[in-house]
Amino acid sequence: MKPIGVFDSGVGGLTVVAALRRRLPAEPVLYLGDTARLPYGTKSAETVARYTQRNVDLLVSRGVKGVVVACNTASAVALPRLRSPVPVWGVIEPGARRAAARSRGRVGVVGTESTIRSDAYGAALRRLRPELAVASEACPLFVPLVEEGWLDDPVTEQIASRYLAPLVARGIDTLVLGCTHYPLLTPLLARLLGPGVGLVDSGEAVAQQLAEDLGRAGLLASGRRHADHFLVTDAAERFGRLAAEILGNPVSLELVELV
Amino acid sequence: MKPIGVFDSGVGGLTVVAALRRRLPAEPVLYLGDTARLPYGTKSAETVARYTQRNVDLLVSRGVKGVVVACNTASAVALPRLRSPVPVWGVIEPGARRAAARSRGRVGVVGTESTIRSDAYGAALRRLRPELAVASEACPLFVPLVEEGWLDDPVTEQIASRYLAPLVARGIDTLVLGCTHYPLLTPLLARLLGPGVGLVDSGEAVAQQLAEDLGRAGLLASGRRHADHFLVTDAAERFGRLAAEILGNPVSLELVELV
Repeated sequence: MKPIGVFDSGVGGLTVVAALRRRLPAEPVLYLGDTARLPYGTKSAETVARYTQRNVDLLVSRGVKGVVVACNTASAVALPRLRSPVPVWGVIEPGARRAAARSRGRVGVVGTESTIRSDAYGAALRRLRPELAVASEACPLFVPLVEEGWLDDPVTEQIASRYLAPLVARGIDTLVLGCTHYPLLTPLLARLLGPGVGLVDSGEAVAQQLAEDLGRAGLLASGRRHADHFLVTDAAERFGRLAAEILGNPVSLELVELV
Repeated sequence: MKPIGVFDSGVGGLTVVAALRRRLPAEPVLYLGDTARLPYGTKSAETVARYTQRNVDLLVSRGVKGVVVACNTASAVALPRLRSPVPVWGVIEPGARRAAARSRGRVGVVGTESTIRSDAYGAALRRLRPELAVASEACPLFVPLVEEGWLDDPVTEQIASRYLAPLVARGIDTLVLGCTHYPLLTPLLARLLGPGVGLVDSGEAVAQQLAEDLGRAGLLASGRRHADHFLVTDAAERFGRLAAEILGNPVSLELVELV
């Protein structure tokens, strides 16, 4: 019973684990949070690519049957050069595909500085539907606001209004949440944008993709749910606290040293 | 002409470089920003200690005559175990000494989660003046707000009001800015707290300490100003942009790889 490997720079990727639990309840997950080096979103492409390769190597050495790169930044800048003996899924392509399938013509993308600068969502969306109008905004304060736990807070609402204003002005009908932390802001963002704008969670999209791909390859687990396992590169207590909130149950963490 | 080594996890320590330039205008500085691993403030003491030792080793290998650990988190958790063949100055002790000399009895301390959890300022202040009342607050959003450039902004003001409210309620007369990013918020914090509360910049305090210690040891540079040199562990463009704002002139960066 090989687990699905999932990694992110921190707790954000746990929203992807939550989506996998809903979509593939029998699959065990081996999660790696590279908390010693988070956040990836403000780092250069070269550095993020180096960290990503090392994280995938660790998960492969622990016997996973595939790896989900839950970090949007890593998916955006590191996937093309990645070497892996098992299948690897990024979050950009599934997220872009879902947005392209739903949009009436104008898509907004929010993410970290690195993800937005990479224009990975824009490129994927234009490949799928060249006539789409795509507008992007980096929202560097969203991750620290989520990590502070201010998920539905007047301050967060003001900051979100400011970040989203240019996208609203462009008349977007679909917003891609291009960072795994952002689904935790869904109630607030949905209220701000109103019912005319659909939100796309790339984590949900990649979970659906995985269900399809593993099913096609005959690699789906069956039977009762196996326990997930969580690795972190730094024992910061905040990971455990946020993980329990996101997943709805306490998790035990194994500290691994990666240089 | 050996330079003074200064390191921080990112750009924050440049406020210390600015203080050194004012106080010791002839001293060349060799700065190291460990941008590939920033921020330190949310990481565990063990991880921060490991990074700090490695940063000091690098600066020593480049021939500095002493090292300023400009990062409050590193000063708080890594100094006791640090090995170095040259003198090392942290920012906690000078900052605490200045606050203890100025306070009328009630000191507030703001900093990152790690710095506040370490209670390093509290311990130093109580050692200096056991009768002092010390209250602390972690302000995890201040660093990302500064890095976003929202230095004097209504949102930053609301967040600061919220973080400072418990300290104001305790009647503090002195506030220690226990993170090198925070001096960039001085105008806003001074306005919020009013003229009855003095602000202590630990960077200013360590620069004064250095001037005294180097003078006593006969190690002061003389003559015209020598060029500073800046090392970063990640080539993120944001460092260059923020550095130019903090120091008032563009800086050229040398990328070094540290594992």
